[in-house]
Amino acid sequence: MSTASIQKLGRRLRLGVIGGAGGALIGPVHRLAARLDDCFELTAGVLSSDPARSKAEAARLNIARGYADMAAMIAGEAAREDGIDAVAIMTPNDSHARYVEMALNAGLDVICDKPLTNDYASSKALAVLARSKGLVLAVTYNYSGYPMLREARAAIAAGEIGEPQTLHAAYVSGSLGTLVEAEPEKMSSRTRWRLDSARGGPSHVLADIGTHVHQLVNFVAGQRIEAVLADVGAAVAGRTAHDTASVIVRLEGGARGPLFITKAATGAENAMSIEVYGQAGGLYWHHAAVNELRVMRHARPAEIRTRGLPTLHPLARAAARLPAGHPEAFHEGFANLYRDFAELAAARRANTTPDPLATCLPTGEDGAQGLAFCEACVASAESGKWVNLAQP
Amino acid sequence: MSTASIQKLGRRLRLGVIGGAGGALIGPVHRLAARLDDCFELTAGVLSSDPARSKAEAARLNIARGYADMAAMIAGEAAREDGIDAVAIMTPNDSHARYVEMALNAGLDVICDKPLTNDYASSKALAVLARSKGLVLAVTYNYSGYPMLREARAAIAAGEIGEPQTLHAAYVSGSLGTLVEAEPEKMSSRTRWRLDSARGGPSHVLADIGTHVHQLVNFVAGQRIEAVLADVGAAVAGRTAHDTASVIVRLEGGARGPLFITKAATGAENAMSIEVYGQAGGLYWHHAAVNELRVMRHARPAEIRTRGLPTLHPLARAAARLPAGHPEAFHEGFANLYRDFAELAAARRANTTPDPLATCLPTGEDGAQGLAFCEACVASAESGKWVNLAQP
Amino acid sequence: MSTASIQKLGRRLRLGVIGGAGGALIGPVHRLAARLDDCFELTAGVLSSDPARSKAEAARLNIARGYADMAAMIAGEAAREDGIDAVAIMTPNDSHARYVEMALNAGLDVICDKPLTNDYASSKALAVLARSKGLVLAVTYNYSGYPMLREARAAIAAGEIGEPQTLHAAYVSGSLGTLVEAEPEKMSSRTRWRLDSARGGPSHVLADIGTHVHQLVNFVAGQRIEAVLADVGAAVAGRTAHDTASVIVRLEGGARGPLFITKAATGAENAMSIEVYGQAGGLYWHHAAVNELRVMRHARPAEIRTRGLPTLHPLARAAARLPAGHPEAFHEGFANLYRDFAELAAARRANTTPDPLATCLPTGEDGAQGLAFCEACVASAESGKWVNLAQP
Amino acid sequence: MSTASIQKLGRRLRLGVIGGAGGALIGPVHRLAARLDDCFELTAGVLSSDPARSKAEAARLNIARGYADMAAMIAGEAAREDGIDAVAIMTPNDSHARYVEMALNAGLDVICDKPLTNDYASSKALAVLARSKGLVLAVTYNYSGYPMLREARAAIAAGEIGEPQTLHAAYVSGSLGTLVEAEPEKMSSRTRWRLDSARGGPSHVLADIGTHVHQLVNFVAGQRIEAVLADVGAAVAGRTAHDTASVIVRLEGGARGPLFITKAATGAENAMSIEVYGQAGGLYWHHAAVNELRVMRHARPAEIRTRGLPTLHPLARAAARLPAGHPEAFHEGFANLYRDFAELAAARRANTTPDPLATCLPTGEDGAQGLAFCEACVASAESGKWVNLAQP
Repeated sequence: MSTASIQKLGRRLRLGVIGGAGGALIGPVHRLAARLDDCFELTAGVLSSDPARSKAEAARLNIARGYADMAAMIAGEAAREDGIDAVAIMTPNDSHARYVEMALNAGLDVICDKPLTNDYASSKALAVLARSKGLVLAVTYNYSGYPMLREARAAIAAGEIGEPQTLHAAYVSGSLGTLVEAEPEKMSSRTRWRLDSARGGPSHVLADIGTHVHQLVNFVAGQRIEAVLADVGAAVAGRTAHDTASVIVRLEGGARGPLFITKAATGAENAMSIEVYGQAGGLYWHHAAVNELRVMRHARPAEIRTRGLPTLHPLARAAARLPAGHPEAFHEGFANLYRDFAELAAARRANTTPDPLATCLPTGEDGAQGLAFCEACVASAESGKWVNLAQP
Repeated sequence: MSTASIQKLGRRLRLGVIGGAGGALIGPVHRLAARLDDCFELTAGVLSSDPARSKAEAARLNIARGYADMAAMIAGEAAREDGIDAVAIMTPNDSHARYVEMALNAGLDVICDKPLTNDYASSKALAVLARSKGLVLAVTYNYSGYPMLREARAAIAAGEIGEPQTLHAAYVSGSLGTLVEAEPEKMSSRTRWRLDSARGGPSHVLADIGTHVHQLVNFVAGQRIEAVLADVGAAVAGRTAHDTASVIVRLEGGARGPLFITKAATGAENAMSIEVYGQAGGLYWHHAAVNELRVMRHARPAEIRTRGLPTLHPLARAAARLPAGHPEAFHEGFANLYRDFAELAAARRANTTPDPLATCLPTGEDGAQGLAFCEACVASAESGKWVNLAQP
Repeated sequence: MSTASIQKLGRRLRLGVIGGAGGALIGPVHRLAARLDDCFELTAGVLSSDPARSKAEAARLNIARGYADMAAMIAGEAAREDGIDAVAIMTPNDSHARYVEMALNAGLDVICDKPLTNDYASSKALAVLARSKGLVLAVTYNYSGYPMLREARAAIAAGEIGEPQTLHAAYVSGSLGTLVEAEPEKMSSRTRWRLDSARGGPSHVLADIGTHVHQLVNFVAGQRIEAVLADVGAAVAGRTAHDTASVIVRLEGGARGPLFITKAATGAENAMSIEVYGQAGGLYWHHAAVNELRVMRHARPAEIRTRGLPTLHPLARAAARLPAGHPEAFHEGFANLYRDFAELAAARRANTTPDPLATCLPTGEDGAQGLAFCEACVASAESGKWVNLAQP
Repeated sequence: MSTASIQKLGRRLRLGVIGGAGGALIGPVHRLAARLDDCFELTAGVLSSDPARSKAEAARLNIARGYADMAAMIAGEAAREDGIDAVAIMTPNDSHARYVEMALNAGLDVICDKPLTNDYASSKALAVLARSKGLVLAVTYNYSGYPMLREARAAIAAGEIGEPQTLHAAYVSGSLGTLVEAEPEKMSSRTRWRLDSARGGPSHVLADIGTHVHQLVNFVAGQRIEAVLADVGAAVAGRTAHDTASVIVRLEGGARGPLFITKAATGAENAMSIEVYGQAGGLYWHHAAVNELRVMRHARPAEIRTRGLPTLHPLARAAARLPAGHPEAFHEGFANLYRDFAELAAARRANTTPDPLATCLPTGEDGAQGLAFCEACVASAESGKWVNLAQP
């Protein structure tokens, strides 16, 4: 399961993590994803601002060294022969910009949770910084790690449906379907900082799941959303934070269609979906059937491609660990990003060319486009007009 | 299967039909739906403008009397003791206004294919005319005849999900996914007149399927779409007629969300869907599982309600003919409108109160709102701004 | 929708019905199916043994003439120029043998509900009688009217999956999941006579739904079940009637596999399914997705064929009334048998060759094989050994 | 993610592995599952019989010490303070008996791939040996690690559907749908040894997937299959190994129903399913919707329970890592067995009571019952009669 460049490098990469301790959801996912293919050793971590607690938590998680903050981790690791090669950032959104910058400036490759930062300008600056330093900056848009979404991307790139002419996507969640703010004492700290615009960003729903949908469309269609006409706000009575966005998008190639992005869909469970159509056919994927891609064709039966089939495009085949019929899911998709990250970072260190199949890993520029999308949606909702996204 | 008021009236209603001969899809559907519950005798028809052909076609279809035009049918039937009670109109859109008006003025109840006419003003006038004469004017928005969509309407009316706070609907068809206009000689006459804006209306996709989605939302939510922000146009390169609309809607109660309405989704097969959410839960229905309604609930398992279950709301139970597990579909849904129409028309003639469960039949006013929706979407797409629908 | 031979004959067939009045499920289904394509006029009926009630019920159902018994109907109709051409039988099972025989001896074509009779010998005799008289004897195994099961049959006949090598089918119903016999006063008369072995036959579950599964397998595979190894009994504690059968079957060509046939599956809703595999691929159909057939292929994506697609086999295309995406279901499937019956009966009267696509209509011989299956299963369950079915 | 007893023990368990190198499917799965929750360090391995290759392979897989055979690993590790605590066995079936015995005799806890051995007597002996030594002997019936199958087990144990009265299960695979034996040079070594009865066991399909279905039924129903009536053989023409079994089972409590177990279903992809019914309701699960359990109820809508919901039974909740809507799949299910194994083995070493939720881990006795099932099926197929399974 290790990668070609890891084999060339002759060792696993040493990874430092910041954030993700305690009750967080995303910490265990990142750590599990990092370990899944055995490309990384988790050797350092910032797991609390209290030095003793950070060490204890590191020990509990089988991470060799615990630090109290990013600066200490960078300094401490730089002083070691076996210091970390890369950093994984899974802290609240408002801290991403600072941590990514510190890590890049220390010469470390970086993998960061989405959104990359809370505004376009800072994200763009990080993307530029990473490129100028020749370092890897990856953003964990984890849905693009799913094999069948990679198949969708490859199928469109291969012209199987013709030029995209219309599209439709959704992310329908019920996690904020009720007014959880009415009982603040019951809110998790994770929900609390996310709904706080100073920490979670100016538009909660766009930052938290809108960026996923934006990246999903760009990733699958193989082209940018260039303009939006949006309605953004709170669907739940009494709420001030944004929980729902309806967005009509236009791709560079001219295809248009609506996105439905909501956390106010009580009872819905992370129901993500995308469909794209050209003159020759269409594609449909939804999260509940994560191992399938429906490929539609003009006046012929639809085809159900399943993860693991030998007939899939190489990009999808490389992302599968198990044969068809043995389901894979969220963790493996997330791990695909870590594996791609390992490949790119190891190739850099081993001075070799990375596997081209790993290069669809979302970059800092993709992260910046996510913030461009958020800002354009908010601007459109305020003006009631079409707004162009910042150019990459 | 007959209705209470039909029993009181003591006889089936006599129905005249206009249109639907030859290769049309919709003619057989109307006639089958009218006959399904044996509430109507099809006794007269205008099936060709050539008198001899109209008679021959009538004979072939077991319709007693064939006429060459609407005026002749009205005059001929008025002269008989056993003349028709009602007229079913299934001609091209641009003729609806004239035929509905003639029928109403002759004192006949009317059931008309959608869209009611090609513009709001004429539809509104027909709705007013029908009401002033005390006649039934029904529009065959057939999806509202589906038992599980009636269950959805009843569930929301009963408060099961709370006040609607967000929603999403789609009608995804591939019937115009390719540039069929490039080979006009292969186009059916039905496709030809529909794409001709003089006959099919100014915006093909909105008139043809947008009106269905609009009515579906209003019907299920139990409230009006009051404003839209829309993008309407041709997705297929080289086309001038509208084939795709993305519409963000706002309901009277404040709920918002996007609609995806397209005939350019190559390979898609009439994929209609709707989901509505409130604080207490949500509903999801899609056409491919026409006999099911998914009822979501906060932090509890979803429920799958199926057509025929004894626990359904009376509105849904009355619309089912078979026990759960024995699927019903398009024809029965269409026939439910004809049965409701029979009940209302027979109640009028029998001077009795109609079954309240038949009163959700789409009216002329519903038809007029459909045109208000089309016109508001086109105006919004032109101005790039929110536009209010004409008030009923 | 009428058939070629009906057109040649120049008139609809006149049909007499026996049974199906009152609260029965199956009466409305037969009448609706008979009327759906307008191939039949329902002109006579035996709807009660009380002459006055039979007439009243006939009037209520728009059937011209009501009789008190089969003999009276046959005599009365024979005396008329416009007497009935055919009889549809939907009475309790134990009366089928007598009524079918009377009708055939009167020169009438017959369509009879399944099971044809309550034992193999009598069914076989009727099949022989029908053939000797050159009359049509059809049995309403309605599932074989479903377009996608006709596609399955045609696909196997065309060699698309290779020779069937293994198979699996099920009919999972919950209608007897609880001990309904504990409250006999709440049982419908229909349930009562079916559970009474004198009227419903010696093995309720086999007669009532086992015959459907048996015919489904034979119909799709295009070959006979020739032997069975079975377990038959009551799953519900306290019941004496058979409610569940597990049957391992062997087809003539050697393919083997299990059938699960039960009415004791509380909460299940008529969940019928079949899958058949050969070396080249497999087929899967289930009732909940009645308009789809999954076609599997070795090391390639599965294909979803949908009712209405132009690429289907002619046998399936001829059985569809609506385009793909517009669902059809139980009534249309049932009506396909009536349409085939009309075609065969009209061809006989018009002295013409019937449409070959109508000839897959289940015959008396198919009905007899159904009883052979029931008897072989019971014998196997008693002996614990493989038992061969009576040869046709 | 670590377990309570691991926390008490204060360290991860040290695991030795035997087998699973090279192109094998199952080796990566075992190693990934063992590492997923970070309860184990993989510190020793037998990865080749060539000492140098075993070391190199160990290094490639980040396993500290590579040995050439089981005896060497046991001896080498026993000599170390930080020697292994447990062994994971993933070699061909015919070697399991010997390796399990050696490990148990060395005082090591064991987790072994299924089938436990190739015959009942040897499996039973191992189960007795493990118990007599107080060691953990687990068998990786991985499907019982799926949260929703644990929910099914818990729901039946809680009486939610009443006493099981009928059931149905299937494992439908196409991996041997064609005559792969015709091109032996293209067969993987894994397929070769499995089809060789000396190594893979006397009945391939029963050993390879039949044991899974058997355990699935016992696990969910909470009771033993006590007798079988079976048909076992080769569906694919020209094959001698068993590829298909149809088995009618009887549970201890009297419930009966069929199993369909085949690898000859060309195009099918590991399609496992189970349904169990009692008087109060039923349960249905299938592999393609691994995160869902359908709970049916008499005359009420079915309920869809999803992995991660707070309303699930504790046994299911403890088996989920992610919230509802974030899918988990094969690896996590497999890892649940490793986590349970870690808990039981650590509890033994820490001299504490293990978490009761970990005690549904399949034991040596469950492994032995699997072989009892295989042998009873073969005996029944030969005699054509019901055969009782060996008593535990």
